[in-house]
Amino acid sequence: MDFKDIVKSRRAIRQYEAKAVPEETIRELLEITSYAVSAINLQPWKIKVVSDQETKDKLFPATFGQNQVKTCSHLFVFCADTDYAGIINTTNRVMQAGGVPDPQREAMMGLAANVADGMPPEARLAWSKEQVYIALGNCLNGAYSLGLGACPMTAFQPPAFAEILGLPENLVPTVMVSIGYAAEAGGPKVRRSVDDILV
Amino acid sequence: MDFKDIVKSRRAIRQYEAKAVPEETIRELLEITSYAVSAINLQPWKIKVVSDQETKDKLFPATFGQNQVKTCSHLFVFCADTDYAGIINTTNRVMQAGGVPDPQREAMMGLAANVADGMPPEARLAWSKEQVYIALGNCLNGAYSLGLGACPMTAFQPPAFAEILGLPENLVPTVMVSIGYAAEAGGPKVRRSVDDILV
Repeated sequence: MDFKDIVKSRRAIRQYEAKAVPEETIRELLEITSYAVSAINLQPWKIKVVSDQETKDKLFPATFGQNQVKTCSHLFVFCADTDYAGIINTTNRVMQAGGVPDPQREAMMGLAANVADGMPPEARLAWSKEQVYIALGNCLNGAYSLGLGACPMTAFQPPAFAEILGLPENLVPTVMVSIGYAAEAGGPKVRRSVDDILV
Repeated sequence: MDFKDIVKSRRAIRQYEAKAVPEETIRELLEITSYAVSAINLQPWKIKVVSDQETKDKLFPATFGQNQVKTCSHLFVFCADTDYAGIINTTNRVMQAGGVPDPQREAMMGLAANVADGMPPEARLAWSKEQVYIALGNCLNGAYSLGLGACPMTAFQPPAFAEILGLPENLVPTVMVSIGYAAEAGGPKVRRSVDDILV
């Protein structure tokens, strides 16, 4: 399917069939998500994948009644990562393994350390969250391209999620996506015209 | 092209042919961008499209030497919109025209007003910026799907941009994308493995 058709036809899907999405499809969706752009290629986020009913039921009270959290096949909880020392370490290893020339890799990692060190903690968190949202877009378009229904949600209580999921302090739950096989068509697609998005 | 192929093959392109992208292609890219998801469907951002050489040259000194700002065909400057009264007005009109049932539309606009009113100005700006990044992803994948090269950039001076482009106070330049016909293959694609993005 053409990319334009994907973005035009994709809908938020909140009703799912009672059928689990195979783990290899979930893995493919995670791979698609992982290819998202990020500032200095740092990918400062992680995903907690929840598929067992008990954990979904435990999370539900912290989601303002969003039923799709309980009825989806898989729930992706996107977390902004604020541990820039750890992030830079991982990125450095990944770039080395990926064959990025040493001078370029070293320059990028030096820049990353400078930028991260120059920010107060709340700016670092905001920066990481912005990168989460790029990955979110890949995940939603990717789910649709794989024949899955998905719904993004930011209305939930991050501290409760962090506790229930046992997340380390550096990972801040930012947005979640419920995933499953669609059991509804979704609402009308309504967006601004091009003229309405131009300055 | 399959979406997975798009996200796997897309590269940041900084070298462009000296050939203008036709306005109808730019318009199509803007349309693809406009379909991005946003919280409560508010689309709290606008794009300033710059294609004249004089303005690109004026912006260049505020971009830390990023040459692609001068040599691209078109530069998209994504601005976070902080005028939530105006945003809600526009969204309300667009939803009405798009046939969203009145009770649903009214509930969404009430929620939007409550959420926006409950935030201090800096939180509203951060919220808008997060939505910008979802649209950015659509723009980058969209450019590639249309056969264009593109490069996202956040290293620039927003106040200088606002002044040169004569932006109203509610629009905050957040990220820019240079667009043109690719004159390079781009660097290696290096990303974390799926295991590296899982908690």
